[in-house]
Amino acid sequence: MKTIDVFLSPAEVGESAVEGRVAVVIDVIRATTTMVEALASGARAIIPTASTEEAVKLASSLGRKDTLLCGERKGLKVQGFDLGNSPSEFKPSVVGGKQLVMSTTNGTRAFLAAEDSHRVLAASFLNLSAVVEAVREEGDLLFICAGKEDRFSLDDALCAGYLLRKLEELEPGGLTLNDGARMVGDLASLHEVDADFLASTAAGRALVEAGLERDLEVCAHLDRYSLVPEMRDRRIGLAIPREQD
Amino acid sequence: MKTIDVFLSPAEVGESAVEGRVAVVIDVIRATTTMVEALASGARAIIPTASTEEAVKLASSLGRKDTLLCGERKGLKVQGFDLGNSPSEFKPSVVGGKQLVMSTTNGTRAFLAAEDSHRVLAASFLNLSAVVEAVREEGDLLFICAGKEDRFSLDDALCAGYLLRKLEELEPGGLTLNDGARMVGDLASLHEVDADFLASTAAGRALVEAGLERDLEVCAHLDRYSLVPEMRDRRIGLAIPREQD
Repeated sequence: MKTIDVFLSPAEVGESAVEGRVAVVIDVIRATTTMVEALASGARAIIPTASTEEAVKLASSLGRKDTLLCGERKGLKVQGFDLGNSPSEFKPSVVGGKQLVMSTTNGTRAFLAAEDSHRVLAASFLNLSAVVEAVREEGDLLFICAGKEDRFSLDDALCAGYLLRKLEELEPGGLTLNDGARMVGDLASLHEVDADFLASTAAGRALVEAGLERDLEVCAHLDRYSLVPEMRDRRIGLAIPREQD
Repeated sequence: MKTIDVFLSPAEVGESAVEGRVAVVIDVIRATTTMVEALASGARAIIPTASTEEAVKLASSLGRKDTLLCGERKGLKVQGFDLGNSPSEFKPSVVGGKQLVMSTTNGTRAFLAAEDSHRVLAASFLNLSAVVEAVREEGDLLFICAGKEDRFSLDDALCAGYLLRKLEELEPGGLTLNDGARMVGDLASLHEVDADFLASTAAGRALVEAGLERDLEVCAHLDRYSLVPEMRDRRIGLAIPREQD
């Protein structure tokens, strides 16, 4: 029987929990949403960093010709950076063929917590069904909600719950769930995802206060793309479909 | 408008979160359940410690005449201790008039995280309505779920949700909730508390495996007592009703 553990923040993830698992990182507002948008627009890869300082350093060592610096502080673009973290900024004309160094505190923590897993994928509402398709033939799974500074975020939990519900439909009664997985499944049975729901969460309210409420429409757009980001050696690119492994 | 923040594990609590708040610690399986039972049986006070070693040291410094050592490892009584952590062991004939040094890893972490609050109370299903009565006239509240080794526990979350629902009935629409509070409220709208529900949680399963399933009947017993434990200077005794403050 397949096991699915949902961790509500990276602080819950322990070493033993990730071994041999396929991990799915979720940061709806906005890191994983933006990553999906960027790869859909033809970006070659995304390298997440935990701080703007680390991002600047890495981008200069990579050379700025093919590299864009992306990141935000309090929702807004960091001074001197090429892009903020609004998914709508990541257009094909801007990011096509480029590699992106992306400063995202909570997203990066979640990816690092997942690093010793068998595979590390990224999910958002934008690519929900594609992630389900990518993991349905895999063994035990681990969903890591990025949260906010080790605190629980309702938007990530709802996305984890949607993933879980879709996997349950494929294997009714065939999943072993931890306490977190059971709770996010309950949550998904009570709420539809839309921009209003996202605006009611702590992360959504912060975005509205920063004048970025339009981003929430993008973050809530279910199954807009059929791609799955996958991290290998700290670079996030398109997942290779399983058949070609 | 009154604010209620629910933190799903002690790891979520930050210093700024507790200041000026009344904190309610919840460890259904079993620390706060056992504390309520012990005070109902006439224990004078409970001193929680994070380890068995600390408990042994403290008990000998206090003198063993009026002091009982209580604690468990993997559900069972620690060798040489007077009592384990099963609420049913804490009978009046055993604990009446005594002070108890109680080794409880997760419970103690939660109490320490709450320590800088205005007041620190303890809740379980056993004393749910009494806690609601004790906090309804207070200002902003903070519920801290003890969880298990910084991981989320469904039993504590359900108890937090029950507390929240009862407070909402008293002040409909009059509460500001964080993401965690909204989620445990949803959970409480979907589940009744009973021994079967508790047995399905991670903490409950561990208790069943240790042969202690009878404890779950006690942990699920709603409003058995009308008392509220309160911690002052690291000693947990009966709360003084607000009028007498």
